[in-house]
Amino acid sequence: MPFLSGTPPYRPERPVFAIVLGNTLLSTVPGVSGAGMSPEKTVLTPVLDSELITRGAIRSRKWKPNTPTGCPTPAVITRAMTVLLGLEPLFVNAGLTTRPVVPCLDVYGEPGGDPREGDAVPRARDLYARGEQVGRFLSQSCDFLLLGECVPGGTTTALCVLRGLGIPASVSSSFVNNPVALKEAICARVQERIQAGGATDPLDIIRIGGDPMLAVAAGIASAFRGDAVLAGGTQMLAVAAVLRDLGKKVPAIATTVYVRDDPSAGFVATAEMIGARVYYVDPDFSAIGHPGLARYCVGEVKEGIGAGGAMFLARLMGKSEVEIRDTILTTASSY
Amino acid sequence: MPFLSGTPPYRPERPVFAIVLGNTLLSTVPGVSGAGMSPEKTVLTPVLDSELITRGAIRSRKWKPNTPTGCPTPAVITRAMTVLLGLEPLFVNAGLTTRPVVPCLDVYGEPGGDPREGDAVPRARDLYARGEQVGRFLSQSCDFLLLGECVPGGTTTALCVLRGLGIPASVSSSFVNNPVALKEAICARVQERIQAGGATDPLDIIRIGGDPMLAVAAGIASAFRGDAVLAGGTQMLAVAAVLRDLGKKVPAIATTVYVRDDPSAGFVATAEMIGARVYYVDPDFSAIGHPGLARYCVGEVKEGIGAGGAMFLARLMGKSEVEIRDTILTTASSY
Repeated sequence: MPFLSGTPPYRPERPVFAIVLGNTLLSTVPGVSGAGMSPEKTVLTPVLDSELITRGAIRSRKWKPNTPTGCPTPAVITRAMTVLLGLEPLFVNAGLTTRPVVPCLDVYGEPGGDPREGDAVPRARDLYARGEQVGRFLSQSCDFLLLGECVPGGTTTALCVLRGLGIPASVSSSFVNNPVALKEAICARVQERIQAGGATDPLDIIRIGGDPMLAVAAGIASAFRGDAVLAGGTQMLAVAAVLRDLGKKVPAIATTVYVRDDPSAGFVATAEMIGARVYYVDPDFSAIGHPGLARYCVGEVKEGIGAGGAMFLARLMGKSEVEIRDTILTTASSY
Repeated sequence: MPFLSGTPPYRPERPVFAIVLGNTLLSTVPGVSGAGMSPEKTVLTPVLDSELITRGAIRSRKWKPNTPTGCPTPAVITRAMTVLLGLEPLFVNAGLTTRPVVPCLDVYGEPGGDPREGDAVPRARDLYARGEQVGRFLSQSCDFLLLGECVPGGTTTALCVLRGLGIPASVSSSFVNNPVALKEAICARVQERIQAGGATDPLDIIRIGGDPMLAVAAGIASAFRGDAVLAGGTQMLAVAAVLRDLGKKVPAIATTVYVRDDPSAGFVATAEMIGARVYYVDPDFSAIGHPGLARYCVGEVKEGIGAGGAMFLARLMGKSEVEIRDTILTTASSY
């Protein structure tokens, strides 16, 4: 199995790695999200992950954004790759419940509400426009944009948006056992609300059933004038689908083989339906020598906060598979 | 009188124009700041100015950030130059009392307190470190940094910091008649507090008597690896002095002749004392055909939110004096 499938486009000269952070109240519904040690703690994962990636350690809280079973957050992979590349990532605050501890390009949004109860992102259109503003700023000096995300519970909002756009998608999960029945129940309720409102515009569908990251990431990617690659799994499929339905160019996606191989997600088929080219990274964590990372291979975590895309970018920038795996192992072991 | 004094360094390839926004409670003390129609309204000026520069109009409030006498905010000049150059500025939120309406790179600081009452910027050292983080991010893809600021009441905190560093400086004002006695009274009280604390480190002096912009701007400039030019008047002298005393490279400053020629400020002498090279821009507003801008020549406003530096950058990027003045007149007349 090759480390990277597909031919990388080229070696960027001035890449920027932007990671959009957001919350949806859905992550506090028990069973929806495994991106944190408990449902209540999942909402803090974007802030803790961004602290870990920027500073190499988490000092603002006494716990780590690991899964309930102790798998390390994928932020250790993203941290490892930014250190290896000497790259300072840019965090974008699309709407968080808590104040970040590292600088963020803040669009001054709000966390997404529970889409079963009412509009999840009332200002979706405005957030998209603010994302465009960010995309224009980044276009001035960067020729390549890797755009990641971190939204605990975000695969469920992505499912709502993909289905709302008429795409018969399933989505992945950070749990080994994807809570498909729970997600489908939430999604069914949201589809009723979308149909009751007669919504067909992608930004209206995000407003009703999405999360703030989806609006901001779509805005950034749509306005970026260089090559953009979306770094993530099924949540980035939703961003790609939104862009397609807005009549914009559909960016490529970079993710891990653990997302591709999730039988509950149908990632490859959905990507084909949307027309998104995908680069898959296989870091072969089964042999890396870290029991928590090895659990990625049996379907836990799989991806997150741009980890797959970060490994993809490291290969683009000429780093070897050995360097990439060694740096990840060191980072995961010491954090 | 030439439009631009001194030889511009070179034409940047990938410039970034960052503008640090902050508040100090001193601007609400009657008589301190003319950067707004009333003392209470001055605190909103950074948010309104950034809205005007980004969107070309202010829609979030029903008034304009003009002086009490109706002089247009210098943001019209900054807006005009960013339009002329096709440049998207980056606003940095160092600590504001109100939520911005445009995206900002937010370091998650707080507005500065009244330095007569207690520490003005308790987290000065942390804000400086977060500024460094921003500077490192910008260094990755930009070869030139123009760094402006907007802090109503900020000449008074700049005075406190310059004097705290042992520099016998005076500072300028957005008023025609600089409220020197009021500023000196505030400064005297703050010097007592600095001396009582035995503070000599520049970041301790900002902590006691400065504002959040001073810490963040110094951090950004210190970590930026390309050429940095500070865009502003006496407040940027304080940033330059802080950098000098931290043992960092002292950046050049770009400002208007209206600051240079303010007899109450002693700008040229202080810049020489600090060792900062200064580029002066003379837009000759007396003949531009706009009564509000003409009042800049009799000493009102003078400078603000990077206006002098924005005109300097336009000349660096090859724009003619005629283009620069025409664009400013059109922008000021239509806003």
